[in-house]
Amino acid sequence: MMKGKVVHLGLFGLGMVGGGIVELLSRKKGKKDHHKFILEKIVVKHLDKERSVPVPSHLLTTDPREILANPEIDTVVEVMGGISPAKEIILEALKRGKNVITANKAVLARAGSEIFKQALDSDCYLGVRASNIATYRLIESLIFSPFQFEKLIGVFNGTCNYILTEMEKRGEDFSPILKKAQEIGYAEQNPSDDIDGYDTAHKLIVLLGLALGYFPPLDSLFMEGIRRISHQDILFAKELGYRIKLLAVARREDNELEARIHPALLPWGRGLAGLDGIENGIELRDEVGVEIGMQAPGAGKYPTATAILEDLVSVAQGRKLIYPQPKRYLTLKRMGQIKTKYYLRFNALDEAGVLAKISGVLGDHNISIKSVLQKGENKKPPGVVPVIMLTHQAKEDDIQSALRKIDNLRVVKGKSLLIRVEQGIL
Amino acid sequence: MMKGKVVHLGLFGLGMVGGGIVELLSRKKGKKDHHKFILEKIVVKHLDKERSVPVPSHLLTTDPREILANPEIDTVVEVMGGISPAKEIILEALKRGKNVITANKAVLARAGSEIFKQALDSDCYLGVRASNIATYRLIESLIFSPFQFEKLIGVFNGTCNYILTEMEKRGEDFSPILKKAQEIGYAEQNPSDDIDGYDTAHKLIVLLGLALGYFPPLDSLFMEGIRRISHQDILFAKELGYRIKLLAVARREDNELEARIHPALLPWGRGLAGLDGIENGIELRDEVGVEIGMQAPGAGKYPTATAILEDLVSVAQGRKLIYPQPKRYLTLKRMGQIKTKYYLRFNALDEAGVLAKISGVLGDHNISIKSVLQKGENKKPPGVVPVIMLTHQAKEDDIQSALRKIDNLRVVKGKSLLIRVEQGIL
Repeated sequence: MMKGKVVHLGLFGLGMVGGGIVELLSRKKGKKDHHKFILEKIVVKHLDKERSVPVPSHLLTTDPREILANPEIDTVVEVMGGISPAKEIILEALKRGKNVITANKAVLARAGSEIFKQALDSDCYLGVRASNIATYRLIESLIFSPFQFEKLIGVFNGTCNYILTEMEKRGEDFSPILKKAQEIGYAEQNPSDDIDGYDTAHKLIVLLGLALGYFPPLDSLFMEGIRRISHQDILFAKELGYRIKLLAVARREDNELEARIHPALLPWGRGLAGLDGIENGIELRDEVGVEIGMQAPGAGKYPTATAILEDLVSVAQGRKLIYPQPKRYLTLKRMGQIKTKYYLRFNALDEAGVLAKISGVLGDHNISIKSVLQKGENKKPPGVVPVIMLTHQAKEDDIQSALRKIDNLRVVKGKSLLIRVEQGIL
Repeated sequence: MMKGKVVHLGLFGLGMVGGGIVELLSRKKGKKDHHKFILEKIVVKHLDKERSVPVPSHLLTTDPREILANPEIDTVVEVMGGISPAKEIILEALKRGKNVITANKAVLARAGSEIFKQALDSDCYLGVRASNIATYRLIESLIFSPFQFEKLIGVFNGTCNYILTEMEKRGEDFSPILKKAQEIGYAEQNPSDDIDGYDTAHKLIVLLGLALGYFPPLDSLFMEGIRRISHQDILFAKELGYRIKLLAVARREDNELEARIHPALLPWGRGLAGLDGIENGIELRDEVGVEIGMQAPGAGKYPTATAILEDLVSVAQGRKLIYPQPKRYLTLKRMGQIKTKYYLRFNALDEAGVLAKISGVLGDHNISIKSVLQKGENKKPPGVVPVIMLTHQAKEDDIQSALRKIDNLRVVKGKSLLIRVEQGIL
């Protein structure tokens, strides 16, 4: 019913995702027969590496110019990863009038404005579905909707969610579970990108860029990973009716944008709190209160390759790039100004008057306590017990000052832990 | 960044949704300023009815030709509802080269092929997002994906979900809860469309039509509503670890399609089983195992009007209709051939040997029992107790024959109840 079109492809990268794309392109699908995708060239790092899919050797090259300078190639698929030279390749391809499809959230998070501007200037299609595979199905709605989003929360990192789920399930702390995750390939040898929140931040920035036309600078976002979460905290949270997730939170109020990534307590039993293992999910509410939730895989060969293929169909269809009018007037809220609820864990001496001292400091900082959980004696150090408090809504600056004071109290040992508490949307 | 375009609109219907559209169109949105939507005419039934939004009287007419025959109007929005004359208006508008945006799932479920064919023949945009507001964000992915869906389950009717949730919460039976739902406007005075499954069937048919290019005929679908579900069944299901939902189920295997609507037990604690009140949701898995879930409102002024506005932006963007190559070779599986698990409730005499007799008949029909729940004595009729059985996977034909035999046993009183048991996908 749609008119068939021939798309001539240049592929950068032949790892897991690149291999998946080659595999999919070679599979004939009835419903796609009217479009034809011809893979003209693949740029790889090493010509003689063993591949998971059979690829004729004449397709392989190590020279990017064999794609970029070839006028026959109208569409570039970039799945090589990394910042450089991926960024330069994407921009160069667009400048030469080629459509670009990329899975590279790290590049988009850092150079999204520049890349989208170039795509619009060159009147090229820029496909970024694969950069946010768990959420891209909502993006068009975010752009097309007459209503702007008001709040979104997301679990965007499968590695963190897997680690937190396993910590809960096995009753172990962060380090041994991370090690196991590395052994089975669910975490990288250098896991920082995932567990310190960068990957989540990249995805949130791309999402905001697509929804608002504004890519907040990576280093302006508050970002805290999951390294400090203990198995104990997971248990305490559970006792209080919550589950701990690494959460991306964004909230828009008029022209002010709040965007942050950190572990958070979410109420048990609904929505994102229910995500287990490597699953990803998002919940969002727009300014008239319409609420949507979505769960989908956040990584993997087929999900990613599928997202790329969907963008290829868009190219074949002659789709124009959709992109909102940039909102350059948006300002990013300073973290100290945000208001939320808090889970606080203090390591306190097991003696009379401790609660009064801690809650006195909190009171002095306008922080009111919702509930207190005081647990039996800890093993080490002796005489020290964990005291857990849930606060009512408070200002981040106030909490941070209060914690500095509390950590200096004689009756408190070691650094106190703070985890923010968020409401699910659904 | 996108070039602005002027769209001239004709609106059919000025009820809740129509009023919402008028309201939204009158709100200026920064990100939509580059497109202009001019409402030229509104066809209503009664000129002098009181409206929730102020509309200049010169815009109103009762004569459809004032829109259809006006060459200035390039886009028709149909939110009048009902089958006729909505169907004729949609087809006539398309024949005259006008884009059509409709929320009318009842018409699409009955005449989807004809309407899509006309839109393609006339090279017009046909926007149907508002006909499936809980799921339309996934539709494009269903069409664009290189993989076909393998299974989907959905909770598509807010009225039924509200009634089932309230039955559970209040411990009351179907009839009094329906009455309350009618009083607060969550159920129609004639509730059959919702509670007997028609609305769910319409949405499933449209979804399948968009995903597969094949709109299964409404009367070929197995459809069973929620009238026979008792509060007792909800309790028994809970005891067994399940929750009862009115479910749409579709499964595609090669060229065979299974599509059915009926109450179903879903395992507690995840996905659609967690939907409360008027919420809608869907879960689906494609042929390579990628799983997606989505929750969203299934009705309401703003969600529906928003979906319409998103289609209007598509029109302004010059989007072409996307529609899969029709799969006319699909065959619909006969209900008797499906295989699933079953919850069976028998009203049995409270005497020795009853279980043996019932399970004997089941065994004769190749149905094996997974678990049995026998409850204390019922109030009425005296001496009769409910016996609940969960079966392993069995064939629908076998279950139906077995139930006919069992209902004729001396020890069984009244008609036994069967509820199918489905696995959630997520």
